[in-house]
Formats: sequence, structure tokens, C-alpha cells
Amino acid sequence: MEFRLSERMNHLKASEIRELLKLTEEPDIISFAGGLPAPELFPIEEMKVISHKVLNDEGKAALQYGPTEGYTPLRKIIAEQRMKAVGVNATYENILITNGSQQGLDFTGRVFLDKDDIVICESPSYLGAINAFKAYMPKFVEIPMDDNGMIIEELEKALEKHPNAKFIYTIPDFQNPTGKTLSFERRVKMLELAEKYNIPIIEDNPYGELRFEGDMIPSIKSLDKKGLVIYLGTFSKTFCPGLRLGWICADKDILNKYIIVKQGADLQSSSISQREAAAFMQVYNLDEHINKIKEVYRRRRDLMIDMIKKEFPENIKYTYPNGGLFTWVTLPEGIDAAELLKIALRDKVAFVPGGSFFPNGGHPNHFRLNFSNMPEDKIIEGIKRLGKVLKENI
Amino acid sequence: MEFRLSERMNHLKASEIRELLKLTEEPDIISFAGGLPAPELFPIEEMKVISHKVLNDEGKAALQYGPTEGYTPLRKIIAEQRMKAVGVNATYENILITNGSQQGLDFTGRVFLDKDDIVICESPSYLGAINAFKAYMPKFVEIPMDDNGMIIEELEKALEKHPNAKFIYTIPDFQNPTGKTLSFERRVKMLELAEKYNIPIIEDNPYGELRFEGDMIPSIKSLDKKGLVIYLGTFSKTFCPGLRLGWICADKDILNKYIIVKQGADLQSSSISQREAAAFMQVYNLDEHINKIKEVYRRRRDLMIDMIKKEFPENIKYTYPNGGLFTWVTLPEGIDAAELLKIALRDKVAFVPGGSFFPNGGHPNHFRLNFSNMPEDKIIEGIKRLGKVLKENI
Repeated sequence: MEFRLSERMNHLKASEIRELLKLTEEPDIISFAGGLPAPELFPIEEMKVISHKVLNDEGKAALQYGPTEGYTPLRKIIAEQRMKAVGVNATYENILITNGSQQGLDFTGRVFLDKDDIVICESPSYLGAINAFKAYMPKFVEIPMDDNGMIIEELEKALEKHPNAKFIYTIPDFQNPTGKTLSFERRVKMLELAEKYNIPIIEDNPYGELRFEGDMIPSIKSLDKKGLVIYLGTFSKTFCPGLRLGWICADKDILNKYIIVKQGADLQSSSISQREAAAFMQVYNLDEHINKIKEVYRRRRDLMIDMIKKEFPENIKYTYPNGGLFTWVTLPEGIDAAELLKIALRDKVAFVPGGSFFPNGGHPNHFRLNFSNMPEDKIIEGIKRLGKVLKENI
Repeated sequence: MEFRLSERMNHLKASEIRELLKLTEEPDIISFAGGLPAPELFPIEEMKVISHKVLNDEGKAALQYGPTEGYTPLRKIIAEQRMKAVGVNATYENILITNGSQQGLDFTGRVFLDKDDIVICESPSYLGAINAFKAYMPKFVEIPMDDNGMIIEELEKALEKHPNAKFIYTIPDFQNPTGKTLSFERRVKMLELAEKYNIPIIEDNPYGELRFEGDMIPSIKSLDKKGLVIYLGTFSKTFCPGLRLGWICADKDILNKYIIVKQGADLQSSSISQREAAAFMQVYNLDEHINKIKEVYRRRRDLMIDMIKKEFPENIKYTYPNGGLFTWVTLPEGIDAAELLKIALRDKVAFVPGGSFFPNGGHPNHFRLNFSNMPEDKIIEGIKRLGKVLKENI
């Protein structure tokens, strides 16, 4: 049967890239395509202890419905530990638990966007955010970036032209897909502009705690005195994505809107996952665990960059990320990375072509490489293979 | 800061009832308000075994990202066990895993509804469905019910008047809030009408497997030869709501639309919860567990109805559900159940006033009673208290 669907479904198509990326899951392919953490670092033994403890101590509550806002002790620990780690003073009443930060992105679209509203974002930006927002049929205004992130003069011009834009979406730390970090000065200026135009900043920060070197730059939320920033956090990169736990940290008035949306969307996040995450942080030290992750990812970043230097042709540019999961590769103009992926797959190596990260299209001459998910021998072999593909086809 | 929000947020308000119901959570109140399963029946010891097994055997995959569609073995077991239990032939490719059936309701709104589109539903209908659909700003056409569910002649009139209605939403078995069941003859006729108007039926079936007596009436989906029915299932009432696991069973073409929506909404449901549910059904027998639940709920239903007979004034009507969690009480015209709740709370007993279950308002003279969540002594005492309130105020 062909039913009469909503207009938004015309904007939400299964992407060709997604179909292509299914091929990257074949076991003989070395894939730098996903955004997956390293599974060998998951705290499996600790989770055995924790899951037994939660079921033993509070089994009935862990398997029952719970409040829409989230499990209060988890909200408290997030405020006291995770938000403090990025310099933010918050209480549990500023925290709503979501199913990863992806759900925070969807809810942001729902709270703010009517059809044809303006979303301001980095160019390029996170594919999952673009797709989440597209369900609400906005228009995207892309702000160019340099090595210090979004160029503020360009943001200012965009706001002058679109003073009723609904929000600025930014991933300030080790951005997905570029690995770039927004400088402190620009954070301050972005906040000033947000205040001038009364426009919220959606600060999506999945990677901020994964800094390999240099001083932490304060989160935008930590500089926010006026409640302009809606902060999205997640345990997917610092703990385990399989639990599907993230959070929104915001002023109570606007958080209440998100809570109403959460109620209609799925009532609440998993009671048992929330209690397990809270118990983990009570019994173990998440910061120590994050240090282990950073150590491994830093080595993988170093190795990938070294290999790129050795194996890639000289006319290919790449970013040097100080943290996070990704580096961003720029090919000469006129090269289509999506076509290149088809060739690379034949040589059993994969990446994500960059075009999908630009909401308004264009820019086919980029691709994203992930360094967190592959062990060192695979990084060496994979970048060799990719270097060969590049040398032969560029 | 006051931001510029989407138009839909004007339609999504925190309900006064919800605020009132927060009071029902105080420990000295006997609450028949929630829709909660009995926590003393949760398989806690079995879940300890299962969660250890999943982490031990497949810990890395259980804590990692997984496919948007869901964990394939779980999709298979749902097709082979749960859908078969309601008479449906399906394969895993017809199943999408969601965060409870609430998420299936939200996605249904997203797939089908533009502003001012028509949703056809029972009058009254499930509050959570009404709220989920309201995020997409439709108009509701309510179809009156009698003891056999939605009155088909009224449905036919509504479809004649609104031939472009987007879907028919129904809870055919032990409906929330009325406890009523749609007769077999009406299911057949509803399908005929759906085919005539090319309109999907959203069959929401959280309670169908909780039948206390009488023969199972085939699910509408089991009678569907044309792919007209989109079936929403859940483990929240037959297993544990705290895992937040439900599913959508539909023809592949329309299910693909839901999968695209799921990708943007939260990427996937919890990897670990999905593997735990699958392992539970492999190691234990969920049907045996459901039989235990039915036995307890049947006794509670019997007791509540007996007490109502004894304690309520004679001019008060109530339904006699053959399964599920709820009975529906009708007060004389002119009585406002929301006002009555305020009095009842003083006497430490609670219910949900019926008005919120009517999407277009009105009908204040009803309330919903839950019998699954309270032990027998509390049912006796609670209905006594409620009888006193009714006698003194009606």
C-alpha cells in the first residue's frame, strides 16, 4: 500500500552513502568510516559487577517505569562530575537524561524549528545533527571554518542577514567531522552575538573530555551567564554507547520544554541503564577510565597522522586534531570522495565521503577518517592501502 | 531568556493533571492512577543471570553501537514468538525495535502527520498517544465506543467526511483507558474500511497478551492481507518497562520510513537491553512468565470489581475488562472527576480523571482505575476510601 505520508518524509531519504557504508562492515575491510569508540576499552568486568549490584539492590525500581526527567542520582552525578569537568555549575534540575545526544538533537529541532526556519551551523557539520534537524524542514546557513573553528565575522554576517534564525549549532571541541576546536576568543564572541540576537547556542560536546594535549578551553556553557547555551552531553564516547545515555544541560525554563517533548517521544530513558551509569560512577572512577581512553586514542591519532604523512600524496591536506575521534582530509578541487570510496572499497579500506556533512550540498572533495576504532596494525595497513588508492587516482 | 520556539510547543503544555498526579506518588497514598505493572513480578533473579551472560558472552557488542533497525536475533524472536502469539506471520525484516511503543506512536506522528491532518481514534483514547500525535498538530476525530469497542458505523461516517484522514489509531484489546475490546466482526469491518479509503490502521497492542478469560480475538494485523496495519508491540507490560523496549511490525516499505525516522531520532535502541531481552527469551520462557502475570492481575481485577460493587454508589457505572490493566468508571453527568480527585487525595486515594483521554476535551465525568500495580490489601482499602469519597460527593 502507498499511504499519504507527511511532507517531512520527502526530506528524509535513506542516504546513498549509508547504503555504501553498509559495505564497510564486511570483516575484511579496514574501516575508518564509523564514529565508534574502541570496544576493547569498554569496562566489561566492571559492568558485570555493576549490573549485578543494581539488580540486587534496586531490581524492582530498575525494571519499572521512572520519571521522564531521568533518575535523580544520575542527574546529580552528571551535574556534579561531568558538567563540572567542563567548567559548568549546574544542579540536577538543569539535567534531562536522553538516549544519547542524538535524541537531544532531535528534541532541539522539535522545540525550535518550524518549516523554513533558519539553523546556523558550521560548514561542514555533524551528519546526524543535519539529519535530525531535517525532520523539521529548516533551512541551513553554513558558516565557514578555519583552523580555529567557525569564523565569527561570517557568523555575524549571517546573523545580520537572518536575525530570526532559531539557533546556532556548534561542536566546539574536536568537531565532527573536522577535528577542529573553536578558540576561546571566538567562544566569547559567539556568546556576545547570541545575546545580541537572543538566539540560543546548541553546544554539542561529545568529545570535549577526550583532549590529548594542551589546555582545556572552557565550554561555551561555562561562559554563559544568561542561559543562552543548551549543552548536549553523552556517555557514548567516554563510557559506552550501547547504553544509549546522554543528557541536556540548560536553564530550567527551556529544559522544561525539552521534558515535555521527552514525555511524548518515549516517556523516559531506560531505568536500568540510568541506574547502571550512576552506580558505575559511584563505585569506579570515570575520569580514570577516560584517561585510559585518551592514552589509546592519542597513540592512534599519532600513528594515523604519521602514516598519512608517509603514504598520502603531498597535495592532500588533513587536520591535526588535539582530541576526539576524527581527522578531515581535503583532496584537490574536482575530486569526488564518494567516487573514490568505491575504488577504496575494492582495496578493502573505507572512509566517509565528506559531502554529506554539508547540509546544502557541494564540497565533494573531502573525507573523514576515524582513528579511535581501529587497532594500530590496522591503522598502518589501512592508511597504506588508502595512500595507494590516492596515488593511483589523484 | 525567552527564545523563539516552534509553533508546536504551543500545543504541548505540561498538563495540570500531570502536576496533580505527582501528588499521587507520596507513599501514604493508595494510587490507582498509574499504568504500571506489578514490580513484585519482575524476573529479577533471571535478569541477574541474563545480564551476566550477555556481558560475559558478548560484552563488547552489547556496549557498542548497533544497527538502527535493532539487534537481529531480537527482531527474529519477536517475529517468531511475540507476533506469532497474536497470529501474525512476520519475519525479522518486518520488525523495528523502538523505545517502548511510545516511541512507535511518536514516529507514527512523524511519518504521517502534517499540521491540521486528521487522526481518527477511539473516544476516549490513550493519553500518551494523544500527546505524541499533538507534537505534529493534527486534528482528532473521535469515534464513540460501546462495549464492543469503536462503533464501526460511526467510523464509516467519519471516513466519508474525512476521506483523507491519515490513519486510524486503535487499541483493540483491553483498551487504555476503558478496558474494552474490539469485537472480531468490527476488526474485519475496520480493515474493509481501511482498504476502501487507503488509510493505515495503527494497532497499538500493549495488553493483548494479558487476557484473563475467553478466547483470544485475532489481532487486526493477523487479518491484514494488504499491508494496511502498522502494529505496535511492547515488552513493557509482559516483561519489564524499565528496559524501554517495544517494536513496530509492518510491511517493509512503510517500515523503511520508520527506520529513517529512528536513525534521526536516536540512532538505535539500547544494544545491551536488546541483547538482554533476546537472551531472556532464549534461556527462559516468556509465555510462562506472562501466565504468572495474568494470574495475579486476574485476581486483582476480580477483587477490584467486587469491591466496586460493594463500595460505590449504585448510579456509578464501570467496565468489566477481560484483560489488561484498567477499568473505566463513569460518574453521573455534571460531576467533574478532576475536582473529585482533589477530594480523594485528601483521603489518600488516587485515580486519573478521564477528561485528558478525550483529545477534543469535554467528558469530565469519568475516571480510570488501574488494578495491576496495587497489592490486594491496598485494593480493598483504596476502593473503600474511594467509595466513601463518592458517596459523600455525588
